[in-house]
Amino acid sequence: MSVELIEQHRSFGGQHNKYRHFSQVLQCDMTFSLYLPSNESQKPIPLIWWLSGLTCTDDNFSHKSGFQRLADHYQTAVIMPDTSPRGEQVANDEGYDLGQGAGFYVNATQEPWAKNYQMYTYIVEELPAIAKTLIPNFSGEESIMGHSMGGHGALVIGMKNPSRYKAISAFSPILHPSKSPWGIKAFTAYLGENQSDWKSWDAAELIKDGNVPPLLIMQGSADNFYPLQLEETDFLANARQANQEVQYKKLEGYDHSYYFIATFLEEHFAFHMNHFQ
Amino acid sequence: MSVELIEQHRSFGGQHNKYRHFSQVLQCDMTFSLYLPSNESQKPIPLIWWLSGLTCTDDNFSHKSGFQRLADHYQTAVIMPDTSPRGEQVANDEGYDLGQGAGFYVNATQEPWAKNYQMYTYIVEELPAIAKTLIPNFSGEESIMGHSMGGHGALVIGMKNPSRYKAISAFSPILHPSKSPWGIKAFTAYLGENQSDWKSWDAAELIKDGNVPPLLIMQGSADNFYPLQLEETDFLANARQANQEVQYKKLEGYDHSYYFIATFLEEHFAFHMNHFQ
Repeated sequence: MSVELIEQHRSFGGQHNKYRHFSQVLQCDMTFSLYLPSNESQKPIPLIWWLSGLTCTDDNFSHKSGFQRLADHYQTAVIMPDTSPRGEQVANDEGYDLGQGAGFYVNATQEPWAKNYQMYTYIVEELPAIAKTLIPNFSGEESIMGHSMGGHGALVIGMKNPSRYKAISAFSPILHPSKSPWGIKAFTAYLGENQSDWKSWDAAELIKDGNVPPLLIMQGSADNFYPLQLEETDFLANARQANQEVQYKKLEGYDHSYYFIATFLEEHFAFHMNHFQ
Repeated sequence: MSVELIEQHRSFGGQHNKYRHFSQVLQCDMTFSLYLPSNESQKPIPLIWWLSGLTCTDDNFSHKSGFQRLADHYQTAVIMPDTSPRGEQVANDEGYDLGQGAGFYVNATQEPWAKNYQMYTYIVEELPAIAKTLIPNFSGEESIMGHSMGGHGALVIGMKNPSRYKAISAFSPILHPSKSPWGIKAFTAYLGENQSDWKSWDAAELIKDGNVPPLLIMQGSADNFYPLQLEETDFLANARQANQEVQYKKLEGYDHSYYFIATFLEEHFAFHMNHFQ
Protein backbone atom coordinates (compact mmCIF):
# COMPACT_ATOMS: atom_id res chain seq x y z
CA MET A 1 0.00 0.00 0.00
CA SER A 2 1.68 3.17 -1.16
CA VAL A 3 0.23 6.60 -0.47
CA GLU A 4 1.83 9.68 -1.97
CA LEU A 5 1.55 13.12 -0.34
CA ILE A 6 0.91 15.49 -3.26
CA GLU A 7 0.00 18.74 -1.46
CA GLN A 8 0.57 20.09 2.02
CA HIS A 9 -0.65 23.42 3.40
CA ARG A 10 -0.46 24.76 6.89
CA SER A 11 -3.98 25.87 7.80
CA PHE A 12 -5.40 27.17 11.10
CA GLY A 13 -2.46 25.72 12.99
CA GLY A 14 -2.90 22.22 11.55
CA GLN A 15 -2.00 20.60 8.23
CA HIS A 16 -4.23 20.25 5.19
CA ASN A 17 -2.79 17.32 3.22
CA LYS A 18 -3.76 15.88 -0.16
CA TYR A 19 -2.76 12.33 -1.13
CA ARG A 20 -2.80 10.04 -4.17
CA HIS A 21 -2.97 6.24 -4.00
CA PHE A 22 -3.93 3.26 -6.12
CA SER A 23 -7.22 1.84 -4.90
CA GLN A 24 -7.46 -1.95 -5.05
CA VAL A 25 -11.21 -1.71 -4.57
CA LEU A 26 -11.80 0.86 -7.32
CA GLN A 27 -8.97 -0.34 -9.56
CA CYS A 28 -7.73 3.19 -10.30
CA ASP A 29 -5.66 6.03 -8.85
CA MET A 30 -7.57 8.13 -6.33
CA THR A 31 -6.91 11.37 -4.48
CA PHE A 32 -8.22 12.33 -1.06
CA SER A 33 -7.57 15.12 1.42
CA LEU A 34 -6.98 14.80 5.14
CA TYR A 35 -6.84 17.60 7.69
CA LEU A 36 -4.83 17.03 10.85
CA PRO A 37 -5.37 19.56 13.65
CA SER A 38 -2.42 21.01 15.55
CA ASN A 39 -3.07 18.67 18.51
CA GLU A 40 -0.29 20.06 20.67
CA SER A 41 -1.61 18.10 23.62
CA GLN A 42 -1.29 14.83 21.64
CA LYS A 43 -4.65 13.68 22.92
CA PRO A 44 -6.58 11.02 20.99
CA ILE A 45 -8.55 12.69 18.18
CA PRO A 46 -11.61 11.46 16.25
CA LEU A 47 -12.13 11.40 12.48
CA ILE A 48 -15.03 13.06 10.63
CA TRP A 49 -15.79 11.87 7.10
CA TRP A 50 -17.01 14.44 4.57
CA LEU A 51 -18.72 13.14 1.41
CA SER A 52 -19.16 15.65 -1.42
CA GLY A 53 -21.88 16.05 -3.99
CA LEU A 54 -22.20 15.61 -7.76
CA THR A 55 -19.27 16.88 -9.88
CA CYS A 56 -17.08 17.45 -6.80
CA THR A 57 -13.65 16.13 -5.89
CA ASP A 58 -11.99 16.27 -2.48
CA ASP A 59 -11.06 19.87 -3.32
CA ASN A 60 -14.49 21.51 -3.07
CA PHE A 61 -14.90 21.07 0.67
CA SER A 62 -11.17 21.75 1.16
CA HIS A 63 -11.37 25.11 -0.61
CA LYS A 64 -14.85 26.40 0.04
CA SER A 65 -16.24 25.32 3.40
CA GLY A 66 -13.81 26.89 5.87
CA PHE A 67 -13.96 23.64 7.86
CA GLN A 68 -10.29 23.81 8.90
CA ARG A 69 -11.05 26.52 11.50
CA LEU A 70 -13.61 24.21 13.11
CA ALA A 71 -11.48 21.08 12.85
CA ASP A 72 -8.61 22.79 14.63
CA HIS A 73 -10.93 24.40 17.17
CA TYR A 74 -12.50 21.04 18.03
CA GLN A 75 -9.27 19.07 17.49
CA THR A 76 -10.60 16.51 15.05
CA ALA A 77 -9.20 15.00 11.87
CA VAL A 78 -11.37 15.37 8.75
CA ILE A 79 -11.10 13.21 5.64
CA MET A 80 -12.48 14.11 2.20
CA PRO A 81 -12.64 11.33 -0.39
CA ASP A 82 -13.29 11.90 -4.09
CA THR A 83 -16.84 11.23 -5.33
CA SER A 84 -16.14 8.38 -7.77
CA PRO A 85 -13.42 6.33 -9.42
CA ARG A 86 -11.51 8.36 -12.04
CA GLY A 87 -9.40 7.94 -15.14
CA GLU A 88 -9.42 7.16 -18.84
CA GLN A 89 -9.93 3.43 -18.23
CA VAL A 90 -12.90 4.05 -15.94
CA ALA A 91 -16.45 3.93 -17.35
CA ASN A 92 -18.12 7.32 -17.70
CA ASP A 93 -21.22 9.07 -18.98
CA GLU A 94 -21.77 12.41 -20.67
CA GLY A 95 -24.15 13.55 -17.92
CA TYR A 96 -22.78 15.33 -14.84
CA ASP A 97 -24.99 13.07 -12.72
CA LEU A 98 -23.68 9.64 -13.74
CA GLY A 99 -20.21 8.13 -13.92
CA GLN A 100 -17.10 10.04 -12.92
CA GLY A 101 -17.91 12.62 -10.24
CA ALA A 102 -21.19 10.82 -9.51
CA GLY A 103 -20.42 7.53 -7.75
CA PHE A 104 -23.39 7.78 -5.36
CA TYR A 105 -21.43 5.84 -2.70
CA VAL A 106 -22.92 2.49 -3.77
CA ASN A 107 -21.35 -0.77 -4.93
CA ALA A 108 -22.38 -1.13 -8.58
CA THR A 109 -23.55 -4.53 -9.81
CA GLN A 110 -24.18 -3.63 -13.48
CA GLU A 111 -21.90 -3.35 -16.49
CA PRO A 112 -19.94 -1.29 -17.40
CA TRP A 113 -19.86 0.12 -13.86
CA ALA A 114 -19.24 -2.85 -11.58
CA LYS A 115 -15.48 -3.10 -12.18
CA ASN A 116 -14.66 0.33 -10.72
CA TYR A 117 -17.77 1.78 -9.05
CA GLN A 118 -17.45 0.23 -5.59
CA MET A 119 -17.48 3.47 -3.64
CA TYR A 120 -19.24 2.01 -0.60
CA THR A 121 -16.50 -0.53 0.07
CA TYR A 122 -13.85 2.08 -0.70
CA ILE A 123 -15.28 4.52 1.88
CA VAL A 124 -16.12 1.93 4.54
CA GLU A 125 -13.13 -0.40 4.26
CA GLU A 126 -10.18 0.53 2.07
CA LEU A 127 -9.81 4.25 2.77
CA PRO A 128 -10.28 3.97 6.56
CA ALA A 129 -7.42 1.45 6.70
CA ILE A 130 -5.20 3.98 4.93
CA ALA A 131 -6.44 6.96 6.95
CA LYS A 132 -5.64 5.25 10.25
CA THR A 133 -1.97 5.07 9.28
CA LEU A 134 -1.92 8.82 8.59
CA ILE A 135 -3.56 10.14 11.79
CA PRO A 136 -1.29 10.36 14.82
CA ASN A 137 -3.20 9.69 18.05
CA PHE A 138 -6.37 8.50 16.32
CA SER A 139 -9.01 7.73 18.95
CA GLY A 140 -10.77 5.19 16.74
CA GLU A 141 -14.00 7.21 16.77
CA GLU A 142 -15.63 8.16 13.46
CA SER A 143 -18.63 10.12 12.26
CA ILE A 144 -19.87 11.07 8.81
CA MET A 145 -21.36 14.10 7.06
CA GLY A 146 -21.98 15.17 3.49
CA HIS A 147 -23.76 17.37 0.97
CA SER A 148 -26.44 16.52 -1.61
CA MET A 149 -25.30 13.20 -3.22
CA GLY A 150 -22.78 13.09 -0.37
CA GLY A 151 -25.57 13.70 2.13
CA HIS A 152 -27.26 10.61 0.71
CA GLY A 153 -23.90 8.82 1.02
CA ALA A 154 -23.41 9.88 4.64
CA LEU A 155 -26.92 8.78 5.59
CA VAL A 156 -26.71 5.42 3.85
CA ILE A 157 -23.20 4.60 5.06
CA GLY A 158 -23.98 5.78 8.58
CA MET A 159 -27.26 3.88 8.80
CA LYS A 160 -25.74 0.67 7.41
CA ASN A 161 -23.06 0.84 10.13
CA PRO A 162 -24.82 2.31 13.15
CA SER A 163 -22.35 1.09 15.75
CA ARG A 164 -19.41 2.49 13.87
CA TYR A 165 -20.36 6.11 13.11
CA LYS A 166 -21.15 8.11 16.24
CA ALA A 167 -23.17 10.76 14.38
CA ILE A 168 -24.50 11.49 10.91
CA SER A 169 -25.30 14.86 9.40
CA ALA A 170 -26.17 16.17 5.98
CA PHE A 171 -26.69 19.37 4.03
CA SER A 172 -29.39 19.20 1.33
CA PRO A 173 -29.25 15.39 1.07
CA ILE A 174 -31.02 13.22 -1.50
CA LEU A 175 -33.30 11.65 1.09
CA HIS A 176 -35.27 9.33 -1.14
CA PRO A 177 -33.08 8.50 -4.15
CA SER A 178 -35.48 5.85 -5.47
CA LYS A 179 -37.95 8.69 -6.11
CA SER A 180 -35.57 11.46 -7.16
CA PRO A 181 -34.55 11.89 -10.83
CA TRP A 182 -30.84 11.90 -9.88
CA GLY A 183 -31.23 8.74 -7.81
CA ILE A 184 -33.39 6.89 -10.34
CA LYS A 185 -30.89 7.53 -13.13
CA ALA A 186 -27.87 6.48 -11.05
CA PHE A 187 -29.49 3.47 -9.35
CA THR A 188 -30.84 2.15 -12.67
CA ALA A 189 -27.33 2.34 -14.15
CA TYR A 190 -25.36 1.07 -11.15
CA LEU A 191 -27.85 -1.35 -9.56
CA GLY A 192 -30.15 -2.37 -12.43
CA GLU A 193 -33.85 -2.05 -13.20
CA ASN A 194 -35.07 -4.13 -10.24
CA GLN A 195 -36.06 -1.54 -7.68
CA SER A 196 -36.02 -4.02 -4.81
CA ASP A 197 -32.21 -3.95 -5.21
CA TRP A 198 -32.27 -0.21 -4.54
CA LYS A 199 -33.73 -0.43 -1.03
CA SER A 200 -30.49 -1.12 0.78
CA TRP A 201 -29.04 2.08 -0.74
CA ASP A 202 -31.97 4.38 0.00
CA ALA A 203 -32.05 6.43 3.21
CA ALA A 204 -35.87 6.55 3.21
CA GLU A 205 -35.89 2.72 3.30
CA LEU A 206 -33.02 2.27 5.76
CA ILE A 207 -34.59 4.64 8.29
CA LYS A 208 -37.54 2.21 8.63
CA ASP A 209 -35.41 -0.06 10.78
CA GLY A 210 -34.70 2.70 13.30
CA ASN A 211 -31.67 2.27 15.55
CA VAL A 212 -29.61 4.81 13.61
CA PRO A 213 -26.93 7.15 15.00
CA PRO A 214 -27.86 10.72 16.04
CA LEU A 215 -28.96 12.47 12.89
CA LEU A 216 -28.95 16.16 11.84
CA ILE A 217 -30.19 17.34 8.44
CA MET A 218 -30.31 20.89 7.06
CA GLN A 219 -32.07 22.04 3.91
CA GLY A 220 -32.06 25.54 2.43
CA SER A 221 -35.45 26.91 1.38
CA ALA A 222 -34.00 28.64 -1.71
CA ASP A 223 -32.30 25.49 -3.06
CA ASN A 224 -32.88 25.11 -6.83
CA PHE A 225 -32.92 21.32 -6.45
CA TYR A 226 -35.52 21.35 -3.69
CA PRO A 227 -37.96 19.71 -3.50
CA LEU A 228 -37.58 17.75 -6.77
CA GLN A 229 -34.34 15.97 -5.90
CA LEU A 230 -34.28 16.47 -2.14
CA GLU A 231 -37.87 15.90 -0.94
CA GLU A 232 -37.98 14.98 2.75
CA THR A 233 -41.59 13.84 3.20
CA ASP A 234 -41.15 10.05 2.87
CA PHE A 235 -37.94 9.99 4.86
CA LEU A 236 -39.44 11.90 7.78
CA ALA A 237 -42.69 9.90 7.71
CA ASN A 238 -40.74 6.62 7.79
CA ALA A 239 -38.56 7.95 10.61
CA ARG A 240 -41.64 8.86 12.66
CA GLN A 241 -43.14 5.43 12.07
CA ALA A 242 -39.92 3.82 13.33
CA ASN A 243 -39.85 6.16 16.35
CA GLN A 244 -36.53 7.38 15.06
CA GLU A 245 -35.62 10.92 16.12
CA VAL A 246 -34.32 13.18 13.32
CA GLN A 247 -33.36 16.83 13.55
CA TYR A 248 -34.51 18.24 10.20
CA LYS A 249 -33.99 21.99 9.86
CA LYS A 250 -35.21 24.19 7.01
CA LEU A 251 -33.06 27.31 6.63
CA GLU A 252 -34.84 30.31 5.15
CA GLY A 253 -33.27 31.85 2.04
CA TYR A 254 -30.25 29.53 1.76
CA ASP A 255 -29.44 27.75 -1.51
CA HIS A 256 -27.59 24.56 -2.54
CA SER A 257 -24.12 26.14 -2.55
CA TYR A 258 -21.11 26.15 -0.28
CA TYR A 259 -22.30 29.55 0.98
CA PHE A 260 -25.00 27.55 2.79
CA ILE A 261 -22.61 24.84 3.99
CA ALA A 262 -20.05 27.33 5.31
CA THR A 263 -22.72 29.22 7.22
CA PHE A 264 -23.99 26.23 9.21
CA LEU A 265 -20.96 23.94 9.33
CA GLU A 266 -20.13 25.05 12.87
CA GLU A 267 -23.44 23.62 14.10
CA HIS A 268 -22.69 20.31 12.36
CA PHE A 269 -19.23 20.08 13.91
CA ALA A 270 -20.62 20.85 17.37
CA PHE A 271 -23.27 18.15 16.86
CA HIS A 272 -20.65 15.54 15.91
CA MET A 273 -18.27 16.47 18.70
CA ASN A 274 -21.11 16.07 21.21
CA HIS A 275 -21.38 12.43 20.23
CA PHE A 276 -17.72 11.55 20.58
CA GLN A 277 -16.42 10.43 23.98
CA MET B 1 -25.08 53.62 -15.07
CA SER B 2 -26.62 50.16 -15.15
CA VAL B 3 -25.55 47.41 -12.77
CA GLU B 4 -26.92 43.89 -13.18
CA LEU B 5 -27.21 41.48 -10.25
CA ILE B 6 -26.02 38.13 -11.66
CA GLU B 7 -25.71 35.99 -8.49
CA GLN B 8 -27.16 36.20 -5.01
CA HIS B 9 -26.47 33.81 -2.13
CA ARG B 10 -27.54 34.06 1.48
CA SER B 11 -24.39 33.62 3.54
CA PHE B 12 -23.85 33.90 7.30
CA GLY B 13 -27.06 35.86 7.67
CA GLY B 14 -26.12 38.44 5.05
CA GLN B 15 -26.15 38.48 1.24
CA HIS B 16 -23.26 37.64 -1.05
CA ASN B 17 -24.03 39.38 -4.35
CA LYS B 18 -22.24 39.33 -7.69
CA TYR B 19 -22.80 42.08 -10.27
CA ARG B 20 -21.92 42.89 -13.87
CA HIS B 21 -21.61 46.40 -15.29
CA PHE B 22 -20.02 48.28 -18.17
CA SER B 23 -17.03 50.24 -16.93
CA GLN B 24 -16.57 53.62 -18.59
CA VAL B 25 -13.05 53.81 -17.19
CA LEU B 26 -11.96 50.37 -18.40
CA GLN B 27 -14.15 50.36 -21.52
CA CYS B 28 -15.35 46.78 -20.98
CA ASP B 29 -17.84 44.71 -19.00
CA MET B 30 -16.69 43.96 -15.47
CA THR B 31 -17.93 41.77 -12.64
CA PHE B 32 -17.51 42.40 -8.94
CA SER B 33 -18.85 40.87 -5.73
CA LEU B 34 -20.28 42.69 -2.74
CA TYR B 35 -21.17 41.22 0.64
CA LEU B 36 -23.83 42.95 2.70
CA PRO B 37 -24.08 41.88 6.36
CA SER B 38 -27.44 41.18 7.94
CA ASN B 39 -27.41 44.59 9.69
CA GLU B 40 -30.67 44.08 11.52
CA SER B 41 -30.00 47.17 13.60
CA GLN B 42 -29.67 49.28 10.42
CA LYS B 43 -26.63 51.05 11.85
CA PRO B 44 -24.18 52.74 9.47
CA ILE B 45 -21.69 50.16 8.17
CA PRO B 46 -18.21 50.63 6.69
CA LEU B 47 -16.82 49.13 3.47
CA ILE B 48 -13.67 47.00 3.22
CA TRP B 49 -12.03 46.63 -0.21
CA TRP B 50 -10.39 43.30 -1.06
CA LEU B 51 -7.93 43.25 -3.98
CA SER B 52 -6.98 39.82 -5.32
CA GLY B 53 -3.75 38.50 -6.76
CA LEU B 54 -2.54 37.34 -10.17
CA THR B 55 -4.96 35.15 -12.18
CA CYS B 56 -7.83 35.80 -9.76
CA THR B 57 -11.30 37.21 -10.32
CA ASP B 58 -13.70 38.42 -7.65
CA ASP B 59 -14.61 34.75 -7.09
CA ASN B 60 -11.43 33.56 -5.38
CA PHE B 61 -11.88 35.54 -2.19
CA SER B 62 -15.66 34.94 -2.35
CA HIS B 63 -15.22 31.17 -2.45
CA LYS B 64 -12.06 30.45 -0.51
CA SER B 65 -11.44 32.91 2.29
CA GLY B 66 -14.44 32.39 4.56
CA PHE B 67 -14.61 36.19 4.98
CA GLN B 68 -18.42 36.26 5.11
CA ARG B 69 -18.42 34.95 8.69
CA LEU B 70 -16.20 37.85 9.73
CA ALA B 71 -18.05 40.47 7.70
CA ASP B 72 -21.33 39.53 9.31
CA HIS B 73 -19.75 39.25 12.77
CA TYR B 74 -18.28 42.74 12.47
CA GLN B 75 -21.18 44.12 10.41
CA THR B 76 -19.17 45.48 7.51
CA ALA B 77 -19.71 45.44 3.76
CA VAL B 78 -16.89 43.92 1.69
CA ILE B 79 -16.32 44.55 -2.02
CA MET B 80 -14.23 42.37 -4.33
CA PRO B 81 -13.31 43.83 -7.73
CA ASP B 82 -11.86 41.79 -10.58
CA THR B 83 -8.08 42.06 -11.12
CA SER B 84 -8.06 43.58 -14.63
CA PRO B 85 -10.21 44.60 -17.56
CA ARG B 86 -11.54 41.58 -19.47
CA GLY B 87 -12.84 40.55 -22.86
CA GLU B 88 -11.90 39.69 -26.42
CA GLN B 89 -11.38 43.36 -27.33
CA VAL B 90 -9.04 43.91 -24.36
CA ALA B 91 -5.26 43.62 -24.82
CA ASN B 92 -3.74 40.49 -23.32
CA ASP B 93 -0.52 38.52 -22.99
CA GLU B 94 0.25 34.81 -22.94
CA GLY B 95 1.84 35.06 -19.49
CA TYR B 96 -0.30 34.66 -16.38
CA ASP B 97 1.47 37.71 -14.93
CA LEU B 98 0.61 40.32 -17.58
CA GLY B 99 -2.64 41.44 -19.18
CA GLN B 100 -5.99 39.97 -18.22
CA GLY B 101 -5.96 38.80 -14.60
CA ALA B 102 -2.86 40.91 -13.96
CA GLY B 103 -3.85 44.58 -13.97
CA PHE B 104 -1.53 45.51 -11.08
CA TYR B 105 -3.96 48.28 -10.02
CA VAL B 106 -2.09 50.95 -12.01
CA ASN B 107 -3.17 53.35 -14.75
CA ALA B 108 -1.29 52.19 -17.86
CA THR B 109 0.31 54.81 -20.11
CA GLN B 110 1.72 52.51 -22.80
CA GLU B 111 0.21 50.85 -25.86
CA PRO B 112 -1.60 48.49 -26.25
CA TRP B 113 -2.58 48.71 -22.57
CA ALA B 114 -3.56 52.33 -21.96
CA LYS B 115 -7.05 52.10 -23.47
CA ASN B 116 -8.38 49.56 -20.94
CA TYR B 117 -5.83 49.09 -18.13
CA GLN B 118 -6.88 51.94 -15.83
CA MET B 119 -7.46 49.84 -12.75
CA TYR B 120 -6.38 52.53 -10.29
CA THR B 121 -9.07 54.95 -11.41
CA TYR B 122 -11.60 52.13 -11.59
CA ILE B 123 -10.94 51.09 -7.98
CA VAL B 124 -10.61 54.59 -6.54
CA GLU B 125 -13.34 56.44 -8.46
CA GLU B 126 -15.72 54.51 -10.68
CA LEU B 127 -16.43 51.41 -8.60
CA PRO B 128 -16.86 53.29 -5.28
CA ALA B 129 -19.52 55.48 -6.87
CA ILE B 130 -21.40 52.32 -7.87
CA ALA B 131 -20.82 50.53 -4.55
CA LYS B 132 -22.26 53.42 -2.57
CA THR B 133 -25.59 53.00 -4.35
CA LEU B 134 -25.69 49.30 -3.39
CA ILE B 135 -24.92 49.53 0.35
CA PRO B 136 -27.83 50.49 2.57
CA ASN B 137 -26.71 52.56 5.57
CA PHE B 138 -23.16 53.07 4.28
CA SER B 139 -21.17 55.00 6.89
CA GLY B 140 -18.80 56.47 4.30
CA GLU B 141 -15.79 54.82 5.91
CA GLU B 142 -13.50 52.66 3.78
CA SER B 143 -10.39 50.54 4.26
CA ILE B 144 -8.43 48.28 1.92
CA MET B 145 -6.73 44.89 2.00
CA GLY B 146 -5.34 42.46 -0.55
CA HIS B 147 -3.15 39.49 -1.41
CA SER B 148 0.08 39.31 -3.43
CA MET B 149 -0.46 41.60 -6.49
CA GLY B 150 -3.58 42.75 -4.62
CA GLY B 151 -1.46 43.39 -1.51
CA HIS B 152 0.66 45.70 -3.67
CA GLY B 153 -2.57 47.27 -4.91
CA ALA B 154 -3.95 47.79 -1.41
CA LEU B 155 -0.72 49.39 -0.22
CA VAL B 156 -0.33 51.69 -3.21
CA ILE B 157 -3.99 52.76 -3.31
CA GLY B 158 -4.11 53.21 0.46
CA MET B 159 -0.88 55.21 0.62
CA LYS B 160 -1.88 57.43 -2.30
CA ASN B 161 -5.14 58.29 -0.48
CA PRO B 162 -4.19 58.31 3.21
CA SER B 163 -7.12 60.39 4.40
CA ARG B 164 -9.62 58.16 2.64
CA TYR B 165 -8.71 54.61 3.72
CA LYS B 166 -8.77 54.16 7.49
CA ALA B 167 -6.52 51.09 7.44
CA ILE B 168 -4.45 49.03 5.01
CA SER B 169 -3.49 45.39 5.29
CA ALA B 170 -1.91 42.81 3.03
CA PHE B 171 -1.13 39.12 2.79
CA SER B 172 2.13 38.27 0.97
CA PRO B 173 2.27 41.62 -0.89
CA ILE B 174 4.70 42.60 -3.64
CA LEU B 175 6.38 45.24 -1.49
CA HIS B 176 8.94 46.50 -3.96
CA PRO B 177 7.56 45.87 -7.46
CA SER B 178 10.34 47.85 -9.17
CA LYS B 179 12.76 45.16 -7.94
CA SER B 180 10.53 42.06 -8.27
CA PRO B 181 10.37 40.07 -11.55
CA TRP B 182 6.55 40.27 -11.59
CA GLY B 183 6.61 44.02 -11.00
CA ILE B 184 9.39 44.76 -13.49
CA LYS B 185 7.57 42.87 -16.25
CA ALA B 186 4.22 44.52 -15.56
CA PHE B 187 5.55 48.06 -14.95
CA THR B 188 7.69 47.92 -18.11
CA ALA B 189 4.64 46.98 -20.15
CA TYR B 190 2.08 49.27 -18.51
CA LEU B 191 4.25 52.26 -17.55
CA GLY B 192 7.21 52.10 -19.96
CA GLU B 193 10.97 51.68 -19.64
CA ASN B 194 11.56 54.87 -17.64
CA GLN B 195 11.80 53.66 -14.06
CA SER B 196 11.20 57.09 -12.60
CA ASP B 197 7.62 56.66 -13.80
CA TRP B 198 7.31 53.56 -11.63
CA LYS B 199 7.91 55.29 -8.31
CA SER B 200 4.38 56.53 -7.75
CA TRP B 201 3.16 52.91 -8.08
CA ASP B 202 5.73 51.29 -5.80
CA ALA B 203 4.95 50.78 -2.10
CA ALA B 204 8.64 50.89 -1.16
CA GLU B 205 8.83 54.39 -2.68
CA LEU B 206 5.49 55.68 -1.39
CA ILE B 207 6.32 54.68 2.20
CA LYS B 208 9.23 57.16 2.16
CA ASP B 209 6.78 60.03 2.61
CA GLY B 210 5.36 58.54 5.80
CA ASN B 211 1.91 59.72 6.88
CA VAL B 212 0.23 56.49 5.77
CA PRO B 213 -2.82 54.79 7.34
CA PRO B 214 -2.35 52.05 9.97
CA LEU B 215 -0.61 49.20 8.20
CA LEU B 216 -0.59 45.42 8.83
CA ILE B 217 1.35 42.98 6.62
CA MET B 218 1.59 39.19 6.93
CA GLN B 219 3.99 36.92 5.05
CA GLY B 220 4.15 33.13 5.22
CA SER B 221 7.61 31.64 5.66
CA ALA B 222 6.86 28.68 3.35
CA ASP B 223 5.67 30.88 0.45
CA ASN B 224 7.13 29.68 -2.89
CA PHE B 225 7.28 33.27 -4.14
CA TYR B 226 9.15 34.54 -1.09
CA PRO B 227 11.55 36.24 -1.04
CA LEU B 228 12.07 36.62 -4.83
CA GLN B 229 8.81 38.44 -5.56
CA LEU B 230 7.85 39.56 -2.07
CA GLU B 231 11.08 40.76 -0.44
CA GLU B 232 10.36 43.16 2.44
CA THR B 233 13.83 44.58 3.21
CA ASP B 234 13.68 47.84 1.24
CA PHE B 235 10.09 48.57 2.21
CA LEU B 236 10.77 48.12 5.91
CA ALA B 237 14.03 50.09 5.77
CA ASN B 238 12.31 52.99 4.02
CA ALA B 239 9.45 52.86 6.53
CA ARG B 240 11.92 53.06 9.45
CA GLN B 241 13.69 55.98 7.84
CA ALA B 242 10.37 57.80 7.51
CA ASN B 243 9.46 56.96 11.13
CA GLN B 244 6.47 55.12 9.72
CA GLU B 245 5.16 52.33 11.91
CA VAL B 246 4.44 49.03 10.11
CA GLN B 247 3.26 45.76 11.63
CA TYR B 248 5.08 43.14 9.55
CA LYS B 249 4.47 39.56 10.70
CA LYS B 250 6.21 36.45 9.41
CA LEU B 251 4.06 33.33 9.88
CA GLU B 252 5.95 30.09 10.25
CA GLY B 253 5.08 27.31 7.81
CA TYR B 254 2.34 29.13 5.89
CA ASP B 255 2.41 29.32 2.09
CA HIS B 256 1.02 31.69 -0.58
CA SER B 257 -2.43 30.08 -0.74
CA TYR B 258 -5.89 30.86 0.55
CA TYR B 259 -5.21 28.37 3.37
CA PHE B 260 -2.91 31.08 4.73
CA ILE B 261 -5.35 33.92 4.10
CA ALA B 262 -8.29 32.08 5.69
CA THR B 263 -6.22 31.32 8.80
CA PHE B 264 -5.31 34.93 9.58
CA LEU B 265 -8.15 36.88 8.03
CA GLU B 266 -9.85 37.33 11.40
CA GLU B 267 -6.85 39.33 12.65
CA HIS B 268 -7.02 41.55 9.55
CA PHE B 269 -10.72 42.22 10.02
CA ALA B 270 -10.21 43.04 13.70
CA PHE B 271 -7.37 45.42 12.72
CA HIS B 272 -9.56 47.23 10.20
CA MET B 273 -12.56 47.45 12.50
CA ASN B 274 -10.38 49.01 15.18
CA HIS B 275 -9.71 51.92 12.85
CA PHE B 276 -13.29 52.66 11.93
CA GLN B 277 -15.30 55.03 14.13
